[in-house]
Amino acid sequence: MKGVQFLVAFVVLALASSLASASDPSPLQDFCVAIEDYKNGVFVNGKFCKDPKLATPNDFFFSGLDIPRNTSNPVGSTVTPVNVAQIAGLNTLGVSLVRIDYAPYGQNAPHTHPRASEILFVQEGTLYVGFEKTDAVAFAGLSSQNPGVITIANAVFGSDPAINPDFLARAFQLDLNVVKSLQEKFWWDSN
Amino acid sequence: MKGVQFLVAFVVLALASSLASASDPSPLQDFCVAIEDYKNGVFVNGKFCKDPKLATPNDFFFSGLDIPRNTSNPVGSTVTPVNVAQIAGLNTLGVSLVRIDYAPYGQNAPHTHPRASEILFVQEGTLYVGFEKTDAVAFAGLSSQNPGVITIANAVFGSDPAINPDFLARAFQLDLNVVKSLQEKFWWDSN
Amino acid sequence: MKGVQFLVAFVVLALASSLASASDPSPLQDFCVAIEDYKNGVFVNGKFCKDPKLATPNDFFFSGLDIPRNTSNPVGSTVTPVNVAQIAGLNTLGVSLVRIDYAPYGQNAPHTHPRASEILFVQEGTLYVGFEKTDAVAFAGLSSQNPGVITIANAVFGSDPAINPDFLARAFQLDLNVVKSLQEKFWWDSN
Amino acid sequence: MKGVQFLVAFVVLALASSLASASDPSPLQDFCVAIEDYKNGVFVNGKFCKDPKLATPNDFFFSGLDIPRNTSNPVGSTVTPVNVAQIAGLNTLGVSLVRIDYAPYGQNAPHTHPRASEILFVQEGTLYVGFEKTDAVAFAGLSSQNPGVITIANAVFGSDPAINPDFLARAFQLDLNVVKSLQEKFWWDSN
Amino acid sequence: MKGVQFLVAFVVLALASSLASASDPSPLQDFCVAIEDYKNGVFVNGKFCKDPKLATPNDFFFSGLDIPRNTSNPVGSTVTPVNVAQIAGLNTLGVSLVRIDYAPYGQNAPHTHPRASEILFVQEGTLYVGFEKTDAVAFAGLSSQNPGVITIANAVFGSDPAINPDFLARAFQLDLNVVKSLQEKFWWDSN
Amino acid sequence: MKGVQFLVAFVVLALASSLASASDPSPLQDFCVAIEDYKNGVFVNGKFCKDPKLATPNDFFFSGLDIPRNTSNPVGSTVTPVNVAQIAGLNTLGVSLVRIDYAPYGQNAPHTHPRASEILFVQEGTLYVGFEKTDAVAFAGLSSQNPGVITIANAVFGSDPAINPDFLARAFQLDLNVVKSLQEKFWWDSN
Repeated sequence: MKGVQFLVAFVVLALASSLASASDPSPLQDFCVAIEDYKNGVFVNGKFCKDPKLATPNDFFFSGLDIPRNTSNPVGSTVTPVNVAQIAGLNTLGVSLVRIDYAPYGQNAPHTHPRASEILFVQEGTLYVGFEKTDAVAFAGLSSQNPGVITIANAVFGSDPAINPDFLARAFQLDLNVVKSLQEKFWWDSN
Repeated sequence: MKGVQFLVAFVVLALASSLASASDPSPLQDFCVAIEDYKNGVFVNGKFCKDPKLATPNDFFFSGLDIPRNTSNPVGSTVTPVNVAQIAGLNTLGVSLVRIDYAPYGQNAPHTHPRASEILFVQEGTLYVGFEKTDAVAFAGLSSQNPGVITIANAVFGSDPAINPDFLARAFQLDLNVVKSLQEKFWWDSN
Repeated sequence: MKGVQFLVAFVVLALASSLASASDPSPLQDFCVAIEDYKNGVFVNGKFCKDPKLATPNDFFFSGLDIPRNTSNPVGSTVTPVNVAQIAGLNTLGVSLVRIDYAPYGQNAPHTHPRASEILFVQEGTLYVGFEKTDAVAFAGLSSQNPGVITIANAVFGSDPAINPDFLARAFQLDLNVVKSLQEKFWWDSN
Repeated sequence: MKGVQFLVAFVVLALASSLASASDPSPLQDFCVAIEDYKNGVFVNGKFCKDPKLATPNDFFFSGLDIPRNTSNPVGSTVTPVNVAQIAGLNTLGVSLVRIDYAPYGQNAPHTHPRASEILFVQEGTLYVGFEKTDAVAFAGLSSQNPGVITIANAVFGSDPAINPDFLARAFQLDLNVVKSLQEKFWWDSN
Repeated sequence: MKGVQFLVAFVVLALASSLASASDPSPLQDFCVAIEDYKNGVFVNGKFCKDPKLATPNDFFFSGLDIPRNTSNPVGSTVTPVNVAQIAGLNTLGVSLVRIDYAPYGQNAPHTHPRASEILFVQEGTLYVGFEKTDAVAFAGLSSQNPGVITIANAVFGSDPAINPDFLARAFQLDLNVVKSLQEKFWWDSN
Repeated sequence: MKGVQFLVAFVVLALASSLASASDPSPLQDFCVAIEDYKNGVFVNGKFCKDPKLATPNDFFFSGLDIPRNTSNPVGSTVTPVNVAQIAGLNTLGVSLVRIDYAPYGQNAPHTHPRASEILFVQEGTLYVGFEKTDAVAFAGLSSQNPGVITIANAVFGSDPAINPDFLARAFQLDLNVVKSLQEKFWWDSN
């Protein structure tokens, strides 16, 4: 029974291309394990790499995706990214994934990925394209080592420095006081 | 004086890569002038092309960008796109442009281009990164033959079919009635 | 207990770039849902698309990934691909996934993906980089709508028409009779 | 009258793909503002980037495009490029632009862009595809952060060290003395 | 002696990136053998493909590159291209080659490839970067299925319809009569 | 006679896309001549470049391809690569080549190029798609500055550390002793 209960619906959703479509540049060598900028705050497109002869299995490994995440936050969901920041070996490979935990009625706030397409599957629970009725867990594959995320409400109302509220009131056809109130709230990043 | 008045500031703004970053596939021949789907509603990625021997100068030409646009609409701006839909010869070339007319205090509503970077320059007037004090005209070059546009307010509150208002109320931390009122308004597409 | 037992290890493995590295061409429109070649055995790079106005949610959906697969075959594993052949809406999006079921001691035979990078995570069981001790289920995200697969043993010994056995005997430093015997066996495709 | 006079023809010309077709690699992060090679004359494909936390609005801004350029030179035109050399924030974004001022009968000498497509529009004057009758100003968007330029006459007759004049005489079917005379002239770079 | 004489210098020259730099879109399937436009003069970016089940070895084969070419023409060289037009199976593979035969003192006229990089090696003879003292044969690999070619002298002086000779006289700082005389000559395409 | 004998068959073979399909990122400048990692074992995707003002003709040149190679080794063939490791100027250009010498009945062991397509031509001898009857020499153009190579037998049986022989016995349906014997042999890298 547990298996059935746990795996009510493996739903696979491919987000429309209008939401994400860039493709990472291709690799030019077998190993290019990312290292942090090693000096003076200098960066490159993507990441500097360590000596390939020093690559280890751990550079291609990440554990702990089995641990359920705490979803008690305003949107009722938590995103656990696994991209080049978590697995240095993903550098130049053009692929990453995320785990998403949903509380009942939780949601993954409207967002876009500026540098990736996404394919989502629901491991547990039923996902109404972003709206949950039970606890749920989903995983998503993304076509970039660093897909990025623009959580729309956060980008619009939580930007720092703040966008002129008169501008937002007109753009969203909202009362100015509603805009100001929204700008005082706290917003979370998600995938 | 007119020149000065008309050309107060040629401001060039490159939007951050988080807003747009895909690159079109490269061309595989000299001419691939787009034609509409010629039969049965069948399409390809990009466009079918006409016989290159039949390409004409008009396939690479568009006129009328000099005519000021009417900006009397809720956001006070009008976008005139010039992409593969207007110039069939742009097919496979990975470049397009737009003209944007602003009324005083007009705005180009918050949006993203899912398939292009953008470089903007202000020909006339002063543009406060989306907020106008005078009539203004700007032009933008985009790195796709079909950059697409997601006008955020329209995509969120004006989608058809409508998104569940309970979902939006939570996502944007808005009162449910405010959401329902927003969903009843009319929204415009822009670039 | 069940959760722990079922999710012993969420192992994430990024395959080295030497195994897969191409990136799909970027999309040039919002929707390009694949249709089969509609006439005369004519194809394009990727797929023809249906009229975007006729796209439906089902074009972006696939169910049944929750059903455990039969793993009683010579290699003790079964791969369930979910790519553009299963979800037509993946066309031009550059992403896909697979489910892999392993019997105890089953294996996913050595293979390469000529058109994709891969990121693998183990939902259930413990995966020793291709060698299983218990039933296990893993999922993998791939950076192509059609990653392809070259199962090495199958490509080498099961090709049709057969490769000259003298050639293979020398290439693999095997006895000619061993090669001939291998060529008589049956081989399975996997992801 | 001024408006009409100034904006006689907004002509948009897309150059054929045979003249320019490469596409820049996609970005792998939100900000990668170019910095000059910081040490020892070492470079990367594209540019090194500064710490994204230190990016400022000025990194995405360039002014002065409103100032008419001096066109008293042999070809009667002046090109003002605005690419990654002028706007460091364009690094990894795959887009740039140029302003072109033409004297009456001025011309933008025959050239190709080895790394970009180009879309040109005429703000003022009438442009006969490279041949002017009045003062004119045009702007062009280009699909690379660094489109490059090969001004053909300059590359052929002005190269340093000089190409063997016998070779050029045969290649262009010119009298040897004409070639030698051309090689003594001075040539200008343009966009 | 013959071997030495025939193989005086295997010279490998990589042309500078300023001359050619685009990369073809990646393949999305195993086989996409080009077929000619099958109906109504309709084309796609690249080529339509035949049913992959009907691919034959001949689709990937071309013979006759061993036959020396006739080099008695004004530039003293002949280019034999082997691209997607000669080998249909090259479609989507992003690679091609050419054979170049040089008469003594022959030359391959100045040209650019708008869609490819090139790597050249001299099989026989001595090649002074385009200028020959003996019979010579060279081969070049190119990074496109259809690299294209712009033979500069031909494009400038042999275009049809002709470019205004006043424009060319100024662009190349030539006497008007020299330009007119050049425009009356006949020019050949090369690789 | 020599010419005929030496050039029995110029056979051109395009390997199927299933064997190789990635495309290198495009260049972003005219010269990016590779230099070795200059400090601390730090690398980038591709190579660091030297100051373009210091580029010399030698950066684009490689000699010695005319010298026949010794083919007395277990597979009876020798591959001489000419890629970015041999010609630093190939960096960012996306093209390389190899010379392959075959002893009679020699072979180029089954392999794939994870980052390149390949186009092969036979200069001398007759090549039965990998199986030789006479001395032969072939050249191949590849669509990457660093195509990489996975020699299958070597990767499978000669990996260090060794793959579990039980796993290989099952994967290749070989007797365990045969696998262990294969793992004790020595394998060579080729292109």
